[in-house]
Amino acid sequence: MLEQLRKEVYEANMMLPAYGLVTFTWGNVSGIDRKSGLVVIKPSGVDYDKLCPENMVVVSLDGKVVEGDLRPSSDTATHLELYKAFPNIGGIVHTHSRWAVSFAQAGQGIMAMGTTHADNFYGQIPCTRPMTPAEIKGEYEKETGKVIVETFADKDPDQIPGVLVYSHGPFTWGKDPKEAVVNSVVLEEVAFMNYHAMSLKVMKYQSDAAKASDPVFASADPAKEGQPLLHPMQQELLDKHFLRKHGKNAYYGQK
Amino acid sequence: MLEQLRKEVYEANMMLPAYGLVTFTWGNVSGIDRKSGLVVIKPSGVDYDKLCPENMVVVSLDGKVVEGDLRPSSDTATHLELYKAFPNIGGIVHTHSRWAVSFAQAGQGIMAMGTTHADNFYGQIPCTRPMTPAEIKGEYEKETGKVIVETFADKDPDQIPGVLVYSHGPFTWGKDPKEAVVNSVVLEEVAFMNYHAMSLKVMKYQSDAAKASDPVFASADPAKEGQPLLHPMQQELLDKHFLRKHGKNAYYGQK
Amino acid sequence: MLEQLRKEVYEANMMLPAYGLVTFTWGNVSGIDRKSGLVVIKPSGVDYDKLCPENMVVVSLDGKVVEGDLRPSSDTATHLELYKAFPNIGGIVHTHSRWAVSFAQAGQGIMAMGTTHADNFYGQIPCTRPMTPAEIKGEYEKETGKVIVETFADKDPDQIPGVLVYSHGPFTWGKDPKEAVVNSVVLEEVAFMNYHAMSLKVMKYQSDAAKASDPVFASADPAKEGQPLLHPMQQELLDKHFLRKHGKNAYYGQK
Amino acid sequence: MLEQLRKEVYEANMMLPAYGLVTFTWGNVSGIDRKSGLVVIKPSGVDYDKLCPENMVVVSLDGKVVEGDLRPSSDTATHLELYKAFPNIGGIVHTHSRWAVSFAQAGQGIMAMGTTHADNFYGQIPCTRPMTPAEIKGEYEKETGKVIVETFADKDPDQIPGVLVYSHGPFTWGKDPKEAVVNSVVLEEVAFMNYHAMSLKVMKYQSDAAKASDPVFASADPAKEGQPLLHPMQQELLDKHFLRKHGKNAYYGQK
Repeated sequence: MLEQLRKEVYEANMMLPAYGLVTFTWGNVSGIDRKSGLVVIKPSGVDYDKLCPENMVVVSLDGKVVEGDLRPSSDTATHLELYKAFPNIGGIVHTHSRWAVSFAQAGQGIMAMGTTHADNFYGQIPCTRPMTPAEIKGEYEKETGKVIVETFADKDPDQIPGVLVYSHGPFTWGKDPKEAVVNSVVLEEVAFMNYHAMSLKVMKYQSDAAKASDPVFASADPAKEGQPLLHPMQQELLDKHFLRKHGKNAYYGQK
Repeated sequence: MLEQLRKEVYEANMMLPAYGLVTFTWGNVSGIDRKSGLVVIKPSGVDYDKLCPENMVVVSLDGKVVEGDLRPSSDTATHLELYKAFPNIGGIVHTHSRWAVSFAQAGQGIMAMGTTHADNFYGQIPCTRPMTPAEIKGEYEKETGKVIVETFADKDPDQIPGVLVYSHGPFTWGKDPKEAVVNSVVLEEVAFMNYHAMSLKVMKYQSDAAKASDPVFASADPAKEGQPLLHPMQQELLDKHFLRKHGKNAYYGQK
Repeated sequence: MLEQLRKEVYEANMMLPAYGLVTFTWGNVSGIDRKSGLVVIKPSGVDYDKLCPENMVVVSLDGKVVEGDLRPSSDTATHLELYKAFPNIGGIVHTHSRWAVSFAQAGQGIMAMGTTHADNFYGQIPCTRPMTPAEIKGEYEKETGKVIVETFADKDPDQIPGVLVYSHGPFTWGKDPKEAVVNSVVLEEVAFMNYHAMSLKVMKYQSDAAKASDPVFASADPAKEGQPLLHPMQQELLDKHFLRKHGKNAYYGQK
Repeated sequence: MLEQLRKEVYEANMMLPAYGLVTFTWGNVSGIDRKSGLVVIKPSGVDYDKLCPENMVVVSLDGKVVEGDLRPSSDTATHLELYKAFPNIGGIVHTHSRWAVSFAQAGQGIMAMGTTHADNFYGQIPCTRPMTPAEIKGEYEKETGKVIVETFADKDPDQIPGVLVYSHGPFTWGKDPKEAVVNSVVLEEVAFMNYHAMSLKVMKYQSDAAKASDPVFASADPAKEGQPLLHPMQQELLDKHFLRKHGKNAYYGQK
């Protein structure tokens, strides 16, 4: 059943250790067959070198195991909420990748600060609100999915294909499992860049502030006088880079 | 003697370079056979590529070499104190892994800030008090063990399977040598995440503080008004993640 | 056509993943044949393991594809502007390498702080001004090149063979494609060093300032009383290192 | 001539890329034969994969090439000054390793903050004073050696086998070329740990200071009330660790 999707999901899972996104068994990828409404997902707590297309687990959108002897990922209920709420996505990834988790633990989204970000995420990668004690003690994994969906009430998941769950870590998605993994790699990369760019701005501000008792705030950034010290990139540049790769007139890559 | 345990201890030692936790010969793993009260431990200062199950050293709980031609790890006396004080543990690891040592050198424990931590450590990974000159000049390695035990006077070593020794580095433990190494890997990972999450919070606070002469302290974290800037994660989330992996109703992984 | 240059450009492109400067297909190298005025460049969005000398694209200086079935890099127009403005250069590289991008996203150049920098860049590696909305919405890649050229109005591109494009990332160049890649590697390395050296200076200043309510500013750096906290290295040392490798009496390496 | 030493120097040079201490050809190791007063050193600017025992260069202590067709390392004169001033050392290493250079560029020594440091360096790894314009314009590499020797006027080079040259990078030494490389690896490691431990202390101080307008300075470190925020480890612990490995009653490793 779903041989092709099993293969895609298996291969996408194997990209996680290859790109350094996981330690041990932390991380899982799923894919959905929209026609049948069935989801293929990594089994829970199985080493990556034991994975194969055959031991992926098939579950229905209401969480029942349809095929497979192993338990599905303990995060399955989160994946299912996202598939139900975001109709265009075909694959989902969850990892505990180091830089993304650092932002999640700080409760901070990753604002767009450069074209690496703009090439794949059309604006800030948001961080969810903290979950309530009731949500945590209830159907936790399902509630995690709901909090993500709530976070996207005013955002387009097709243009911002990822999120940080507060105190937890990143989920990304895409039109298929492989694209979802690519977005996880990019998210980790821009988390690194965002962290250090913000730190450089703070260092420069501190250095400038150290020169005079009256902080010359505007000097912290030559581009945007009067803006807060840490602010996103220019909107025009964000538009340009996202749209040259993803807009209808995209001209990156081969036809 | 103890062939199976020798093999386990040898294999656990070899995980240290594989997971990037050691440089040169810095680091050692031991395991205990609770029936006989004998401990198998890495020999001191021997390169990892020279290790084999046969050159592991067997010592008794009072520190006598029972079998083996090589000297046991210079940290053996620390291991023995822990085996005597913590009756449920079966393996111990000591490394000088970079991120954990950074916290130990700062004299700071690693507070729980996210689910990666919660999955393996049920609360802050503590840092011991500094040792006294008398302890350092006396039976130093044994005293190191005693200071660790003192640190756990009000903590459960089975739920917080690791510690940072002040100005020194991490010790972790587990039900067997392999689990002890897994906990060392996790400790290193959460040290990385904790460092950067704290740094992000400080940066955001500094950025906010820079905007106004009256620091808007509460804005530093949307989750917990009135809390200190650097504070642990929600208790409920800590409970949830630790217990879904380790509680009696754990549902992570395969049955 | 241009078999030798195709080979050089191909090999220089393959250095990018080998030196850890690129993720996925982010990054491109070109080379120019000054006699014919033809440029060989990486095709757009093609995986590195699919590249070969034969699928490099040949374009003229006015941007027309002269030979090749694939689209040239989407950054081709930027390369062409640089070849037209900087007559001595023979190769150009663009990457999104992590440390260099962090500086670009902070809008900060990389000042010379040590001999590693001085060995290859004779002064600060500048960051361009932000591009205007009109430039971004117009011929964006060509305008990117023009902004770089504008940044070098008062600098010598042969002595400072690299730049950071604001909110974007680094471009480097050299007498041939390989040297341009070497300069990208060095730029990434000095970005790392510069970041941490600045951070150490800020930490020391903060530590000193914490001791007294009256910041003893001069104590932050024993070398240069009255200088700003973050300042470049000594001019004499910059001269010495750049010239012992690149001056007419250079004595580094073999004759 | 000096076949055994050539082999040792060659092998020690090859450890530099193996331990990630060098990029391209940055870095060199030498060894001395104290009987003949001859020094074997890496040739200048030759790729590591082209090195072999046979192309190492033999020079006399007054800098004349005694055997070899290639130019010796451009840093040879620095090595020679150290061999002349430090009679017990048998090998010297110079690299531009990233963390050590960051400290050198900040003009800061690496104070002893933990046992990893204490195991190999008996106190702060000092940073030289800046060189004067006259020294830089004169016999630069020889003057570099002299400034290092000056830095050790009140220190024992056998107990602190390394230094940072201001705005430049590290030199380490040891009883033979291999031990000198080991000290370079340790220096890089403790630079990493020192950086992050200091940063953690600053973060904690900032966090504490943010809580109250009156900074509770003593709270920054439970161990040493009234000490500066960034201070070295306990002297007793430094003694213990250095002497258990290097003192006359050392008990680390095998007899």
